[in-house]
Amino acid sequence: MPTTSPPISPAMLALGRQARTAARTLARLPGAARAAALAGMPAALDAVKAELFAANAADVAAARAAGLAEPLLKRLLVTEKVFQYLRDRLAEAAALPDPVGRVLEGHVQPTGLRVERVSVPIGVIGIIFESRPNVTTDAAAVCLKAGNAVILRGGSEALRTNQVLAAAMTAAATAAGLPEHAIQLVTEPGHESVRDLLRLDGYIDLLIPRGGKGLIRAVAEGTRIPTLKHYEGICHLYLAADAPAEMAVALSVNSKCERVEVCNALEKLLVDAESAARLLPVLAAAFRERGVELRGCPRCQALCPGAFVPAAESDWTEEYLAPILAVRVVDGVDAAIDHINTHGSGHTDGMVTQRLDWAERFVQGVDSASVMVNASTRLSGGGDYGLGAVVGISTDRLHARGPVGPEALTTYKWVARGDGHLRR
Amino acid sequence: MPTTSPPISPAMLALGRQARTAARTLARLPGAARAAALAGMPAALDAVKAELFAANAADVAAARAAGLAEPLLKRLLVTEKVFQYLRDRLAEAAALPDPVGRVLEGHVQPTGLRVERVSVPIGVIGIIFESRPNVTTDAAAVCLKAGNAVILRGGSEALRTNQVLAAAMTAAATAAGLPEHAIQLVTEPGHESVRDLLRLDGYIDLLIPRGGKGLIRAVAEGTRIPTLKHYEGICHLYLAADAPAEMAVALSVNSKCERVEVCNALEKLLVDAESAARLLPVLAAAFRERGVELRGCPRCQALCPGAFVPAAESDWTEEYLAPILAVRVVDGVDAAIDHINTHGSGHTDGMVTQRLDWAERFVQGVDSASVMVNASTRLSGGGDYGLGAVVGISTDRLHARGPVGPEALTTYKWVARGDGHLRR
Repeated sequence: MPTTSPPISPAMLALGRQARTAARTLARLPGAARAAALAGMPAALDAVKAELFAANAADVAAARAAGLAEPLLKRLLVTEKVFQYLRDRLAEAAALPDPVGRVLEGHVQPTGLRVERVSVPIGVIGIIFESRPNVTTDAAAVCLKAGNAVILRGGSEALRTNQVLAAAMTAAATAAGLPEHAIQLVTEPGHESVRDLLRLDGYIDLLIPRGGKGLIRAVAEGTRIPTLKHYEGICHLYLAADAPAEMAVALSVNSKCERVEVCNALEKLLVDAESAARLLPVLAAAFRERGVELRGCPRCQALCPGAFVPAAESDWTEEYLAPILAVRVVDGVDAAIDHINTHGSGHTDGMVTQRLDWAERFVQGVDSASVMVNASTRLSGGGDYGLGAVVGISTDRLHARGPVGPEALTTYKWVARGDGHLRR
Repeated sequence: MPTTSPPISPAMLALGRQARTAARTLARLPGAARAAALAGMPAALDAVKAELFAANAADVAAARAAGLAEPLLKRLLVTEKVFQYLRDRLAEAAALPDPVGRVLEGHVQPTGLRVERVSVPIGVIGIIFESRPNVTTDAAAVCLKAGNAVILRGGSEALRTNQVLAAAMTAAATAAGLPEHAIQLVTEPGHESVRDLLRLDGYIDLLIPRGGKGLIRAVAEGTRIPTLKHYEGICHLYLAADAPAEMAVALSVNSKCERVEVCNALEKLLVDAESAARLLPVLAAAFRERGVELRGCPRCQALCPGAFVPAAESDWTEEYLAPILAVRVVDGVDAAIDHINTHGSGHTDGMVTQRLDWAERFVQGVDSASVMVNASTRLSGGGDYGLGAVVGISTDRLHARGPVGPEALTTYKWVARGDGHLRR
């Protein structure tokens, strides 16, 4: 830190201190209290529904007047459908099993010392995110489910909306006996409050930035607090020599086209040299029909003249988040694994095959958070993995990898119980 | 990073690249190969025993000539006893269960998608440590057991010793079919090689500094690579109102005196107000007999005049690593928990009681890596927890907390197997 940094604002310090105190209280409350708090939140949202829509309308109007781009305005908007989604996710989180207090391992030492490793909350989690209001409720729900106090710092353009959401969630939390500061929202606009959050080392145990790459990088590089990041989803699908055409096309199309702007959408298709002549024409037709631009390696171009724009080297590492797909012919499963480990982002990578030995080789060799066999890359996520609400998908390797649900927001402590056991 | 940093040296870059390649190979080898490599290491050490002792003698002579202090010379010395210890720990690691490939959770989604979370190696681990040669073998063994490639950077005063150890371990590893660069030792002396290690973001997945606080801080603050740290052990023992005198004294004395300079040695004793009059005189006598200086709060001094030096505020947060103990009278289990959570370092804290409700309250409330009930704080560690070799004891909250054995040096991947499963 440069020595010229101004001191942390008293308001932010207070937020940190209150969060730590709330976390200590939360750690000692039973899971039933946390479940009751979450279960009360949908009704608490219902009670402020009119207020919420008014606040959101004011946010949207102010953002439009300030010239916010249309796609961003759309993300900010709380429609009736979004409202139901927020409610449903809170109810879902309430019903999930308690991730705290699981005995992760346990045994009795030959001396009679009973040793257990038990899951406990991490403590205080800070979430820094952009304007989607669903992050406000999702993140608070997942953090609270795992017994953590949470400090939310949403985009300033959603401040009115987030204030109503946070107040409603806090009302439900305190009604269930949870501490007042279990959920706190940073209401100071401006970047000073983000800068201060990054410096609350003593009070925040984990920071999760959610948003564009710029935000994530700024948080990760600007703090000593551990962070859980989600950088890029450069997802691959490898069609093996034996890949059945119908499944290969269906999975390629679903992985790419079901939604193009999300992190687990397909960006690169690897086609085995043994299946390329058979599969590339049908793939090219299927993608052409859906308006997807195909960028191909020289072997693709030779096999399907006219179907591919030539791929540049940068095409193997670019996250398009758009109807563009890079396609490469590779020689066998090991070449596919090497390509993925070299050019991928370790998010989600899949394979289509019916051969068990190849599938096992791929699963072992690909170094990614999620490895899919005969399944769409779009299925890597909290919902489709059965985890319920998540705060994001981690591309970090440590602590949590892949979808970050309530279990990933716990840590553990060792408990050793003896009867006067000494070290000899 | 300041823009004035010189480029990373080609030798260090090569080390990083080789480690990454070795890690990829290791991730695909069966556990039996890693176990065989470790099992071969004691014999590999035997084969270079004379060479090792000669190298170590040269290191010790050079260090003595350079004026290294006697306790540091002692740590550097490989005696026959140390040699046997190195051998035994390697054999022990070989025999531990494989931490890789455990199915941590698994279920079939209603759609038929089979979802598993499977433990995998972290990848490349860098260990930066001071002169104890046992760290060289322990760290390499734990990293390799978990399928990781390791880069070791020991103190330059132990370089000759470490070179013989690393070469012997590598000979055993390659004989068992492991890649040549699974274990690499940084042989460039000087701080440039450490500085370069801290910048190998793309090649090192985890850094573990082992040594004094200065080293740990320099590593943690000088890198973007995730670190696993072991800062301080400010360990407490709380003697409850009902603590039986005999057990209270035995556990206090063992926790403090069995070895004073280690991280899980007792530094602070909390005595309940209800038991203070009964316990303080016997405790004072026991510690006086062992030459331990007692620093007490005003209530201690009032109850046992003459037995205590007055404790300053700093005594509650200082790690002595010496025959000194700070003692405080506290009012009840909640006050003990608050004191520990406020002043402790989250390493190891214990309690003596026969009351179940108090014990449970303490276990839940104390926010430390290890919580002991009726057991010496000295028992928190890899050996006494039955984990075998460890690379240290983490006081971090994330990824690994407490003793860091082979399981803690794994991460996981999600594997989803379908039969053409699409996202709908």
